[in-house]
Amino acid sequence: MTAAERLSRAWSTNNSLLCVGLDPDPAKFPKHLQNHPQAIFEFNRAIIDATGEFVCCFKPQFAFYAAERAEDQLELTIRYIRERFPNVYIILDSKRGDIGNTAEMYAKEAFVRYGADAVTVNPYLGGDSLAPFLKDPQRAAVILCRTSNAGAKDIQDLKSGGRPLYETIAEKAAREWNERKNVLLVVGATYPQEMKAIREIAGDIPFLVPGIGAQGGDVAAVMEQGKTAHGSPGLIISASRSVLYASSGAGTSGEDFQEAAGKEAKRLRDEINQYR
Amino acid sequence: MTAAERLSRAWSTNNSLLCVGLDPDPAKFPKHLQNHPQAIFEFNRAIIDATGEFVCCFKPQFAFYAAERAEDQLELTIRYIRERFPNVYIILDSKRGDIGNTAEMYAKEAFVRYGADAVTVNPYLGGDSLAPFLKDPQRAAVILCRTSNAGAKDIQDLKSGGRPLYETIAEKAAREWNERKNVLLVVGATYPQEMKAIREIAGDIPFLVPGIGAQGGDVAAVMEQGKTAHGSPGLIISASRSVLYASSGAGTSGEDFQEAAGKEAKRLRDEINQYR
Repeated sequence: MTAAERLSRAWSTNNSLLCVGLDPDPAKFPKHLQNHPQAIFEFNRAIIDATGEFVCCFKPQFAFYAAERAEDQLELTIRYIRERFPNVYIILDSKRGDIGNTAEMYAKEAFVRYGADAVTVNPYLGGDSLAPFLKDPQRAAVILCRTSNAGAKDIQDLKSGGRPLYETIAEKAAREWNERKNVLLVVGATYPQEMKAIREIAGDIPFLVPGIGAQGGDVAAVMEQGKTAHGSPGLIISASRSVLYASSGAGTSGEDFQEAAGKEAKRLRDEINQYR
Repeated sequence: MTAAERLSRAWSTNNSLLCVGLDPDPAKFPKHLQNHPQAIFEFNRAIIDATGEFVCCFKPQFAFYAAERAEDQLELTIRYIRERFPNVYIILDSKRGDIGNTAEMYAKEAFVRYGADAVTVNPYLGGDSLAPFLKDPQRAAVILCRTSNAGAKDIQDLKSGGRPLYETIAEKAAREWNERKNVLLVVGATYPQEMKAIREIAGDIPFLVPGIGAQGGDVAAVMEQGKTAHGSPGLIISASRSVLYASSGAGTSGEDFQEAAGKEAKRLRDEINQYR
């Protein structure tokens, strides 16, 4: 199955464009998990069970596992998603970027060790640093284009040849890097005008859109500016904290965290679908 | 001890600007380590023992551990360097780059979990993505500026305001990001003219210089173009494969790999020092 077919199947399986980011922060776990030896996996499992029927994708954020010495629980998490929801897409969000022989190792990590469908990558090192992630037509690379943070403008908005850097990235993605139709782009929900310009350049390339929920991006604007011309959904819209910690906001989660996460995921899926 | 003091001590302890990159590739290990359960750590230990008196720095490349499910052996490796050569600097080469709350997790990974002195970071996400790595004046961030690979030109050479992107990064590093004097820059040995321009902009900011050895960079040119105006050494010159696999080149290492690595590290240290 090609990367594009796999993503299509993921969009249709739950009639959803929603992605839930798995950014497990032990400080916010409910009490009964606070001293559990596999608290991260147990928390994720509860979230996956509650939200898996409302999403097209899960996106574990590598940093949260690395900081906690929990790569083994990241492995368990991905394996659990595969068993429980085999049609759901999995993006490892680790923003890799390195020279060729090293990038080969990162591709092995993402696709062989963790078995992800796709991995986020940083384009700063250029085309040869992306190539190892794009060799296998069954797997995809999600290239950072316009990120959702305030500082994104520092580098990504610099103008070169009359256009901002993020447009050049979109152009290269569409014309040079997408030979095997397995490129996606990260385009933050917090910048709808930029998203519109990137959609015009990138054609039907799917966007991974972080920034709704805790970061404040607007679903209606994303759906309007990010839509493709040819009817493919074209969008994977990601929320993390607003789903994971739906029961509590910033503090310790309540024991109803699982139910609250499921409800919020359903609400977001349905809100997004209103605009399709 | 500030980040700058720690680096100064590392330069003087062995009178060396050489960094050995710890990129352990099990396919190239000598026969007696091929089926060892901690082959990576054992290989690194042999390399550290043989080269530690000729270097200012060790630089483990994260990808080689991640691909092999060997984060535990990366921890052991860093702990071993600290015990055996406490004055040597340690850079975790993991090229992290993410939005603020995630970057906090990566800073925790690099400085708390692994206990590195510095971590390489990618500037594409802007100043707020770098800030968590620069908060602690005892630790440093090594920001990618002009990398050593052929594709570096794709993005890093794009001109904005009349200057290439890597010069803008150097400018921001010097004027905005270096408040606590704990910024370093990655500047590849394979581009000496670019290095000269970056040195003019960056003042005394230390450069981590990959690309001598297997990648073909020229030591004399690096020493000429990378030197600082005020007598600080200013350079950490890194070789990986040419030292680790000195006994064999691309194939399986001979049983003399340790002796060969030590000899090559001494030779490189002395070659570099000829130009000081």
